[in-house]
Amino acid sequence: MKKLKLSLDNLEEMLPDSLSPEQKAKAKTLFYKELACRAHQFYHGKMQTLPKAPVLGFNWFNAWYTPGVSNISTTIRDNNDTSYELSNRGNLVAVISDSTRVLGDGNCTPPGGMGVMEGKAFLMKYLGGVDAIALCIDSRNKDGQNDPEKIIDFTKMVQHSFGAVNLEDISQPNCYRVLDELRETCDIPVWHDDAQGTACVTLAALINALKLVDKKLGEVKIVYFGAGASNATIARIVHTAGADPKKAIMFDSKGALHQNRKDIEADKRFYRKWELCQTTNPHNIESMDDAIKGADVLISLSKPGPCMLKPEWIRNMGSKPIVFACANPVPEIYPYAAKDAGAYIVATGRGDFPNQVNNSLGFPGILKGALMVRARKITDEMAIAAAESLARFSEKRGINPENITPKMDEADVFPYEAAEVAMQAIKDGVARKKMTWKKAYNTAKDDIEHARKTTHFMIDHGLIEPPPQNMIDKALKAALKNC
Amino acid sequence: MKKLKLSLDNLEEMLPDSLSPEQKAKAKTLFYKELACRAHQFYHGKMQTLPKAPVLGFNWFNAWYTPGVSNISTTIRDNNDTSYELSNRGNLVAVISDSTRVLGDGNCTPPGGMGVMEGKAFLMKYLGGVDAIALCIDSRNKDGQNDPEKIIDFTKMVQHSFGAVNLEDISQPNCYRVLDELRETCDIPVWHDDAQGTACVTLAALINALKLVDKKLGEVKIVYFGAGASNATIARIVHTAGADPKKAIMFDSKGALHQNRKDIEADKRFYRKWELCQTTNPHNIESMDDAIKGADVLISLSKPGPCMLKPEWIRNMGSKPIVFACANPVPEIYPYAAKDAGAYIVATGRGDFPNQVNNSLGFPGILKGALMVRARKITDEMAIAAAESLARFSEKRGINPENITPKMDEADVFPYEAAEVAMQAIKDGVARKKMTWKKAYNTAKDDIEHARKTTHFMIDHGLIEPPPQNMIDKALKAALKNC
Repeated sequence: MKKLKLSLDNLEEMLPDSLSPEQKAKAKTLFYKELACRAHQFYHGKMQTLPKAPVLGFNWFNAWYTPGVSNISTTIRDNNDTSYELSNRGNLVAVISDSTRVLGDGNCTPPGGMGVMEGKAFLMKYLGGVDAIALCIDSRNKDGQNDPEKIIDFTKMVQHSFGAVNLEDISQPNCYRVLDELRETCDIPVWHDDAQGTACVTLAALINALKLVDKKLGEVKIVYFGAGASNATIARIVHTAGADPKKAIMFDSKGALHQNRKDIEADKRFYRKWELCQTTNPHNIESMDDAIKGADVLISLSKPGPCMLKPEWIRNMGSKPIVFACANPVPEIYPYAAKDAGAYIVATGRGDFPNQVNNSLGFPGILKGALMVRARKITDEMAIAAAESLARFSEKRGINPENITPKMDEADVFPYEAAEVAMQAIKDGVARKKMTWKKAYNTAKDDIEHARKTTHFMIDHGLIEPPPQNMIDKALKAALKNC
Repeated sequence: MKKLKLSLDNLEEMLPDSLSPEQKAKAKTLFYKELACRAHQFYHGKMQTLPKAPVLGFNWFNAWYTPGVSNISTTIRDNNDTSYELSNRGNLVAVISDSTRVLGDGNCTPPGGMGVMEGKAFLMKYLGGVDAIALCIDSRNKDGQNDPEKIIDFTKMVQHSFGAVNLEDISQPNCYRVLDELRETCDIPVWHDDAQGTACVTLAALINALKLVDKKLGEVKIVYFGAGASNATIARIVHTAGADPKKAIMFDSKGALHQNRKDIEADKRFYRKWELCQTTNPHNIESMDDAIKGADVLISLSKPGPCMLKPEWIRNMGSKPIVFACANPVPEIYPYAAKDAGAYIVATGRGDFPNQVNNSLGFPGILKGALMVRARKITDEMAIAAAESLARFSEKRGINPENITPKMDEADVFPYEAAEVAMQAIKDGVARKKMTWKKAYNTAKDDIEHARKTTHFMIDHGLIEPPPQNMIDKALKAALKNC
């Protein structure tokens, strides 16, 4: 009998042939959910802290701690910038969330985001060579409301212990105010991965998709379906990168965005959406049926599918339609259905379909790049440089309609991205420290290799226990029973 | 020519014979300060984050992160207590400081405490098998004042990501209010190591010292010299453990504490000091000369010496005087001078004299014990149980006037202490989880051994680089030049 491998590489083969593609997709999701529960319980989470400096005898604690460390306190006191060199903050990211919109699961209460944020810290280290810690916070004020001011105050208070902040899974509209305020007032980069990160990898995929259909970013007509923080930020970044907002139309749950949307204008907290009302859709088109006619690109980040996007919309698009259906966990339309309707390139948020638009390609490299040059912020241009580097990286090794973005296991993409981001930071005048492209690339590459080597050494030498075979067997059994 | 070993074990031998004991002590302090600067610069701090769960292939990220992790978010949302099992918070401590009183160096600005707090995280892992992260925060309010309410609010917000909080180096009087409020209102243990930690190890030393002079805690006359947060907490814990406050007299910089000290009564922020005014010194003795007459114990945590305590005070104490001169970096009186004046047992805060009263003996074991049973708080009785365990541990392996406390390199003291603290937590009704002494001891022992093994494995396999010989040589040269 076939056995599921501990690497999980043969999961696909373990699924009965009798299942439809849709059932197989569901079975895989169920399997990973089952496995997640068992594995997190077994390991009690997934990250730890460890020394990165030696203890060659107990006398060393007289240097790492008192009395010697007094020299570190006073040196940093006299010049705060030395804290980047003398403490681990220079390579340390705070992953801050108030757990009010945890992936697709909504408000999960303050500790509910721990699994995701610790996962982010895991990816940060393994893919980007960056240390990170999950800080899931309670943002409720005295009235019990999730208050953006509390997140802002918290982050400003803690910024001195970190080289950068990764905001995550903060519900709308608080996320706008939090990010914009912190980007302006913090002295370290504050990155909102749901918004900026998604925008960056979406732009990368779009750049390569356009190459394949031989169209220019400045000339294409784009329809954005969904106007949450992610899609609103995608639009901003895509337009900053060169797309023409006058050819763009965005939809929220109430219809198209345009200058007559008084409901959006009235609620100041949605100022980012209001900006898009003013800059896009100059002819005040109202319906999706009208908007989609002849469109070159459809970027959808709305609600889980598979029936959120109508096939006839795709049929009415222009030549070689590009369709990004990025809702999680189920895309707004399945790729095969989109293709049936005429889509030339389809991307989703899922790893089990071609062309995954995956945030994990962005933040580890972007934050590594920002940290290496001690950036004070991450500019939109740095995010665009990251997107372009991802696009160029995959173009170099070859792209086609089923393969427009790098995969997470292409290790070399991250140092390449980090170096590009670092160079852009220097260009934009936000870097505290200068370095050459080569130096940045090598530093990032060394740190990433070191993180992976250390992890695998610990696994190979039993310092991280292997998962028991019956953990994965039971997870598979439970998944197949329920799909 | 002799060479300084990388273990630093032969540092003493490397000091010229021409130096006096005092000069040697100074040279060592200078050496560690020099070494601290070079070593922190070389390693860029001393802690990192790493996975504690395996990546046996990239498919595993579908369990550690999306889509599988969704199951972790919703499970924790539905029962917050599962976060202790499903994330790393169950073994994770936040070391929180506003850097306003960093060891002996006063206010060091927010990032100024990073060296100390990261050092604390280092000790936490290496000695206690506990993960920890340094959070140095800016506690200034809009008026630029360090505001205890800001520290309180910050800690309450972040508590859901941690199993315990270690408060550190917060200036007086803010530290009282912060600790007392957080101990009452947080659902996780909040430990103030400067105060409670110091009290715990001081009590341990006192218990053993009294055994050697054959006196009973309930009967001795104690003089406390210095009334900062540490000494005030020492008094509270020592009295709770059985000493008679009516036989105690405490001094601050203005004189003896007693019920007529209207200046202390007037400032509500010093309510802890005012409690001591009401409970000690019933005869309103005013002068140190009067107070010290016939005293059995002198516990001094005042200002760096070596001339803060007068030899004639010690000469006027009772039989076999016990003198704790614990100011850092220089004790209020050097041990040899105290002995000359008749002290029978002398303890200091320094590792290069006998009888170090060292916080590092306390917090790793205490926090490990509290974490293992998911304690909601650390009671004074748990701190006393820790003190008694330290005293018993050293008594078992033998004590004498030059050796009343365990040393940091006696690895077995920590699991022993952790198990005792865990049992006391269960007894006090603050444990969320029950376990046997044996189970607690073994868990702590395994975790500590694992932390050390992993650290040394990384050192031995070059994953942590050894320090270059010239780093330590240069530090020694610089120290000898300046002493």
